[in-house]
Amino acid sequence: MAAVVDAVVDVAQKVEDMILGEDGKPLSKSALKKLEKEKEKEKKKLERDAKLAAEKAARESASPDYSTDRYGNLPVNMSQERTGRIRTKIATLTEKNIGETILLRARVQTSRPTGSKKCFLILRQGTVTAQGVVTVDENTISKQMQKFASSISVESLVLVEAKVVKALQKVTSCTVQDVELQIEKLHVVSAAARLPFTLEDATRPDSEYEKDPNLVRVKLDTRLDNRPIDLRTVTNHAIFRMQHGVCRLFREFLEQNDFVEIHTPKLLGAASEGGANVFKVEYFNEKAFLAQSPQFYKQMMITSDFGKVFEIAPVFRAENSQTHRHMTEYVSLDLEMEFEEHYHEVLDVLDGLFVHIIKGLKERYAHEIEVIKRQLPFDDFEYLEKSLRLTYPEAVKMLRDAGVEFGDFDDLSTEKERILGQLVKEKYHTDFFMLDKFPLAVRPFYTMPDPARPGYSNSYDFFMRGEEILSGAQRVHDPNLLQERAEQNDPPIDPETILPYLDAFKYGAPPHAGGGIGLERVLMLFLNLGNIRRTSLFPRDPHRLGP
Amino acid sequence: MAAVVDAVVDVAQKVEDMILGEDGKPLSKSALKKLEKEKEKEKKKLERDAKLAAEKAARESASPDYSTDRYGNLPVNMSQERTGRIRTKIATLTEKNIGETILLRARVQTSRPTGSKKCFLILRQGTVTAQGVVTVDENTISKQMQKFASSISVESLVLVEAKVVKALQKVTSCTVQDVELQIEKLHVVSAAARLPFTLEDATRPDSEYEKDPNLVRVKLDTRLDNRPIDLRTVTNHAIFRMQHGVCRLFREFLEQNDFVEIHTPKLLGAASEGGANVFKVEYFNEKAFLAQSPQFYKQMMITSDFGKVFEIAPVFRAENSQTHRHMTEYVSLDLEMEFEEHYHEVLDVLDGLFVHIIKGLKERYAHEIEVIKRQLPFDDFEYLEKSLRLTYPEAVKMLRDAGVEFGDFDDLSTEKERILGQLVKEKYHTDFFMLDKFPLAVRPFYTMPDPARPGYSNSYDFFMRGEEILSGAQRVHDPNLLQERAEQNDPPIDPETILPYLDAFKYGAPPHAGGGIGLERVLMLFLNLGNIRRTSLFPRDPHRLGP
Repeated sequence: MAAVVDAVVDVAQKVEDMILGEDGKPLSKSALKKLEKEKEKEKKKLERDAKLAAEKAARESASPDYSTDRYGNLPVNMSQERTGRIRTKIATLTEKNIGETILLRARVQTSRPTGSKKCFLILRQGTVTAQGVVTVDENTISKQMQKFASSISVESLVLVEAKVVKALQKVTSCTVQDVELQIEKLHVVSAAARLPFTLEDATRPDSEYEKDPNLVRVKLDTRLDNRPIDLRTVTNHAIFRMQHGVCRLFREFLEQNDFVEIHTPKLLGAASEGGANVFKVEYFNEKAFLAQSPQFYKQMMITSDFGKVFEIAPVFRAENSQTHRHMTEYVSLDLEMEFEEHYHEVLDVLDGLFVHIIKGLKERYAHEIEVIKRQLPFDDFEYLEKSLRLTYPEAVKMLRDAGVEFGDFDDLSTEKERILGQLVKEKYHTDFFMLDKFPLAVRPFYTMPDPARPGYSNSYDFFMRGEEILSGAQRVHDPNLLQERAEQNDPPIDPETILPYLDAFKYGAPPHAGGGIGLERVLMLFLNLGNIRRTSLFPRDPHRLGP
Repeated sequence: MAAVVDAVVDVAQKVEDMILGEDGKPLSKSALKKLEKEKEKEKKKLERDAKLAAEKAARESASPDYSTDRYGNLPVNMSQERTGRIRTKIATLTEKNIGETILLRARVQTSRPTGSKKCFLILRQGTVTAQGVVTVDENTISKQMQKFASSISVESLVLVEAKVVKALQKVTSCTVQDVELQIEKLHVVSAAARLPFTLEDATRPDSEYEKDPNLVRVKLDTRLDNRPIDLRTVTNHAIFRMQHGVCRLFREFLEQNDFVEIHTPKLLGAASEGGANVFKVEYFNEKAFLAQSPQFYKQMMITSDFGKVFEIAPVFRAENSQTHRHMTEYVSLDLEMEFEEHYHEVLDVLDGLFVHIIKGLKERYAHEIEVIKRQLPFDDFEYLEKSLRLTYPEAVKMLRDAGVEFGDFDDLSTEKERILGQLVKEKYHTDFFMLDKFPLAVRPFYTMPDPARPGYSNSYDFFMRGEEILSGAQRVHDPNLLQERAEQNDPPIDPETILPYLDAFKYGAPPHAGGGIGLERVLMLFLNLGNIRRTSLFPRDPHRLGP
């Protein structure tokens, strides 16, 4: 039977290789589809052959199989039994468990037979691994069972009953190193088909490619095309646990500070902010538009006296640009609050919020950071307990002093942002800072001008490693000034299209300020991952709508 | 000047009355617009006249105004000063503050002059109120200042400096009843235009209309058309703080149980689940579709070994039906988890989750519940510490015993759900229960059949006050069975359209189950509000896309 299994593997490999075509280029969609069908047919035929051969081998076998009740494929679990028997988590295994017989479900990360007597399995649960061994003996574990263990495809889910024993030597290939599992029963829960790439290839650090350039690289597009597999890597487990961390720390700080969570609509009757870069939706017999931000709604909540509000929700941008930091859909962490005297009251809250998030990530996710660094090394994120605040003119001066040409009211390009980030890092030793007092002309119409500094406004951006991660401002809360600013916008905004927004300020609005934070950007920059698609589970850009 | 002010009010009233037209019907949009312009013009003219008259009056006044630095309109706050002077929150005022001079910003809820010597203001911050009094004296508070106080339009924001004094008698019209504020300075921060309805009318309980049918009623549509004003009522403040509460309790329980928060895309490349009721989006030169649920994605996360995941995000349904419980966009609280043996492991978690939410709302939001009951009385929500679980056949029997005709495999109609809810309430004294083992034919194709009970499935709905608030199931995790179920669906689902989803299960998927909860429904039913639009900040239905 082993020969048949090998044949299956061989053919699958051949089919897999063909996907690239003979010229090394990927095949067309229809060709791939055809290939897929052939592959499937081939696979079924081989499976039939394997089954027949196995039956024949069993009939003819000289040694009777005394382990048949100890291994095999389980039927699909349809919840027909609930014994309540305790299952062990690999993460909890220590020398204290030696001598115990445990039951656990895990993935087979690798299966390695040595001779005809043993088979070593690396068993994985999420990001933790332990070594299991099937050892043939005279009356419990048969040769057939060892062969079965050897034939389990990688990434299959298995149910294992095993005795915990002391490892003869440290199992350096696993996270559990002091004990290993003497497997007594081994059943496949869900078998895995051959993967489009191995998790080993998907988890390898760049440094290893420098040593051996023949190792297989898995490109980002291949990963994203097969995202559910790519997401199994320990690196991605760590990244997306930290994404949860950012949201959790954001909420934690704001809830402690009496902010109210809101949920505002994503389907809008009118395209706000001038109508550029807005996705159109067929809404029964009308047109609707997807929200580019919850801006107008969170401000309306301020006019409704909710005082301090936040929202975590997707926003949509129909920008046809393919960059490392833009997506057509991303998660925005938004907040807005009224203030008493000066928008710097809000800036103080935002300062505290960011220190809380950065500190929280470093302290609570130290393990995840270590895991990510193993594959994707990065310099630790530097920050100050009280964040650096620069004014726009100060930043312009820093740039000019460094030889960069820059007009007083120029907007910051991506390139200049990065240079500024470097200058700040050298001088102040921080990867995070706030830039206040942007030129009025480069900000949205609802930004409050600064009458004391003509041409500037009460608005700010925050930066992490030289890239913008928050944009915010004091907003115009006076209805007449707001309408005037809309009409003066370039291109002018017809007040009719934003009437419900303008109307909200007619009934007495408090001064307020806020900001919007790109969730995926914060994480990308904290971890210095270089591409926003790495911090989005299923990223969307002009060329990607799936999976 | 008082005469001029009165004239302004009169004309405004007249213009307001005209909006209804002479036949009592609302005017057309263009007529309204024209009217708006005339109104604006009229208002400006009157303002000019008022100013001139005031200047004249001041010049001719027999009594010089010795309070000019104590009252007036403040310029628009553009953050030009930050004194850091402490502002007081009305909610903190007690007898301990007597004798203190405090500064605070608040809305003028009512302004009531008595004679020419006094003016009483009810000052509001969010949901709390205190009484302020302007009293004319010989050298600090002038008659002019008293007149100014009387002329402030309701809902304007004012900055008040005042001495806290003991109230001569309990101020029963305010939440702060033992002290009142002797106003020493009074400035308008943001003046309010005339409101489309008063907050008093918007906050009145039904019982008062029974006593006096002439009182003005504010219809739901009028409220929603003017939502930022409607949201200022104490009732709405309480409702939406509780909405935050539901999300907070949901997350709190799941985070304690090691769930990971995820964010899945709302823009999809293919319409899933057969393609009915899906909104289409123009996506550059392609079509995209808005997600009806994160179903497929949260399941993919399970195949990626995240184990337990949750998401709070909007979902979109293009259902052209106008009911009390459907919206085209709502917030879904979704969760999915793998299990070891039986999907009832997941049902146990969901049970704990709901008890946590219901109990948490009752305990932590007792004040909000009281506030809401004042306007919209309801029976306290009854629940059991260990929730009631019925099977579908048990529910069918209860219905039949009560004389309802019902086939074994019929789906529950809204009407029958409600009857079942009443029967359960009478028998078990709970407004919350779980209904397990739905007929397979009425569930989505990815629902796991129950082989022990042909025709039934491993799926469940939860009910609050006889309405469904969660739908969930064990999902099919075997790729062959899943494809088979898709093809057998009515109408059949082409596997090609859900290929990334089907593919995700090829690489070894654990058995798993989950559910999706409608946020607005949970709150609507807990508070027995009768219409889901009351628990959505800016509801969307086939006829409403704004504000």
